[in-house]
Amino acid sequence: MAREQVYNFAPGPSTMPVSALKTAAAELLDFKGSGMSVMEISHRSPLFQEVFDGAKARLKSLLRVPDTHEILFVQGGATTQFAAIPMNLLAGGTADYAVTGNFSGKAAEEARKYGNVHVAADTTATGHDRIPTQAELNLSPDAKYFYYCANNTIFGTEWHFVPETKAPLVCDMSSDILSQPVDVSRFGLIYAGAQKNMAPAGLTVVIVDKALAGHELPITPKILSYKTMIETDSLLNTPPCWCIYMLGLTLDWVSAQGGVEAMDAVKRERAGMIYDFLDESRLFIPHAKPEARSFMNVTFRTPSAELDAEFVREAAARGLKNLKGHKLTGGLRASLYNAMPVEGAKALLEFMKEFEHSHV
Amino acid sequence: MAREQVYNFAPGPSTMPVSALKTAAAELLDFKGSGMSVMEISHRSPLFQEVFDGAKARLKSLLRVPDTHEILFVQGGATTQFAAIPMNLLAGGTADYAVTGNFSGKAAEEARKYGNVHVAADTTATGHDRIPTQAELNLSPDAKYFYYCANNTIFGTEWHFVPETKAPLVCDMSSDILSQPVDVSRFGLIYAGAQKNMAPAGLTVVIVDKALAGHELPITPKILSYKTMIETDSLLNTPPCWCIYMLGLTLDWVSAQGGVEAMDAVKRERAGMIYDFLDESRLFIPHAKPEARSFMNVTFRTPSAELDAEFVREAAARGLKNLKGHKLTGGLRASLYNAMPVEGAKALLEFMKEFEHSHV
Repeated sequence: MAREQVYNFAPGPSTMPVSALKTAAAELLDFKGSGMSVMEISHRSPLFQEVFDGAKARLKSLLRVPDTHEILFVQGGATTQFAAIPMNLLAGGTADYAVTGNFSGKAAEEARKYGNVHVAADTTATGHDRIPTQAELNLSPDAKYFYYCANNTIFGTEWHFVPETKAPLVCDMSSDILSQPVDVSRFGLIYAGAQKNMAPAGLTVVIVDKALAGHELPITPKILSYKTMIETDSLLNTPPCWCIYMLGLTLDWVSAQGGVEAMDAVKRERAGMIYDFLDESRLFIPHAKPEARSFMNVTFRTPSAELDAEFVREAAARGLKNLKGHKLTGGLRASLYNAMPVEGAKALLEFMKEFEHSHV
Repeated sequence: MAREQVYNFAPGPSTMPVSALKTAAAELLDFKGSGMSVMEISHRSPLFQEVFDGAKARLKSLLRVPDTHEILFVQGGATTQFAAIPMNLLAGGTADYAVTGNFSGKAAEEARKYGNVHVAADTTATGHDRIPTQAELNLSPDAKYFYYCANNTIFGTEWHFVPETKAPLVCDMSSDILSQPVDVSRFGLIYAGAQKNMAPAGLTVVIVDKALAGHELPITPKILSYKTMIETDSLLNTPPCWCIYMLGLTLDWVSAQGGVEAMDAVKRERAGMIYDFLDESRLFIPHAKPEARSFMNVTFRTPSAELDAEFVREAAARGLKNLKGHKLTGGLRASLYNAMPVEGAKALLEFMKEFEHSHV
């Protein structure tokens, strides 16, 4: 089971804890002595219920989810939530959207099908290199909710404060969930595609204030109704069992590391060393404004697209994989999610220094 | 990696080919020498594109899908398709639904949100123990489509003919896809949750006639638009990569066995021996009418609920797992999907004979 040591800086699906992968491989054919794979057992069997309940309880404990909120395990990714959120919460009214990147822009566009969208902030003009301040948020008086994306994977920016709004907060935490403590009670709804900090692609975690459920539009598919999913404990139909199993293994690892406080400390160390170098670099140019920098996705570039490509190629040859920036931005990007060891960031830093030395 | 030999008769998630599980375990930590798990690589990487294209091409070949139709890999299970189908194909018109079990009933109920539903057949009165004949189908003159569920997992019945209708056929093949040859050109849309004959739960395969796409209601979520999914080759957002990978491994196994013709022969042998015994049994009572019997799910019972429970317990002790019937029907059920070896059916048959001998 040995594998060549590589560091995988992919933006998602992305690197996972090795301990979780090893456990999964070891018990793939025979889950807990059942003679069956965890993929082969019924989602309504006691054996799987234990997996499901265990992952949910661990997540509730790690994120300190209050009893006012329910954790749902659903399918379809953020793109599905772009529709489910307004279908359930907008009820034909107005919602405020902060557009600070590609995915919040898409969320706002989708919501227009189901009610009025008021753009409360928009950082398009500066290439989404910043996050608006509280004072810059142009809030509607009667908004049903305020929507934002906590971390912009593509542009490498992150909200370092929780907005103050009268309306319930709805937050896409796909790329920074579990990387820091969060006061869940301040949110009406938090959701996250699992494929960055939690589990393989195919699972979306929704944490919803139960008081907000039950007002969906009549055309809402039953599977997208938060009320129905709360009532059925996410088991209206067969859930993505393997992803929930892998989530449990990943959460075990997060707990063993010391929980979200430990993840928070490590993320600062990991991203900090790259940003410190970028600030003094004579070659690399950081994209995000310092006060808006993401701890999860570090975006930067060299002076030319050719040199960017050379950097990606040479890095890959050293086992530093997937450093190419998104096609919308070009340039370079290092995604440093929870499962990226500090050693990975150190290896990247060393390579950046060498690359600079030989190209300046 | 040895595991105790059990036969798993679960209705889904269900038994998978051992060769697929072994390959998955062996390359879980290091996919094709990349130093990464297949769960850790980008869905837009060449390495994953190969997995995706390979599974799709294999499915197209095994089911002989014509070029008029597109294969989509989506999320959300049959319950999501219950809404997506009328959102995309009904356009406020009328659709004919044959209600021959639990899931077709739910599909009809969901479709009422988006247009008119005409019940073309309903077998509720006899406990869904039969399938209507062609002559019994009460078709609307102007139906946008005719919907049916090819195999009723809970009740153990299966359509052994393809209905003749003017309207395009829409068919839920979740529990018998890949168990026999099918003339895809006769269908407007075929879909199947993967967790019975194809892959772990979390993937739904949709095969749609491209000519039917593009007429969705304005309130259709983008992720549920067949047109959008055709245009993006199912990569509008991150797909359930692991499930698509496992689908590929399962399809490799189906091919190696001889394709759907071989699956068809084996299913007849497997289910045939159980039905033959049921027909002469002095203890067990089959549920489905002989002409409607499913090759995938054999439903039966003893004269009492207590004896049913004893049968399930004793069978499990012998490694014959998950023989309990669905809560809607009670009784017993043996699900015999593609990956169930003939030896599994033989072991069940032997046990049924012994059990009868000691209880009559």
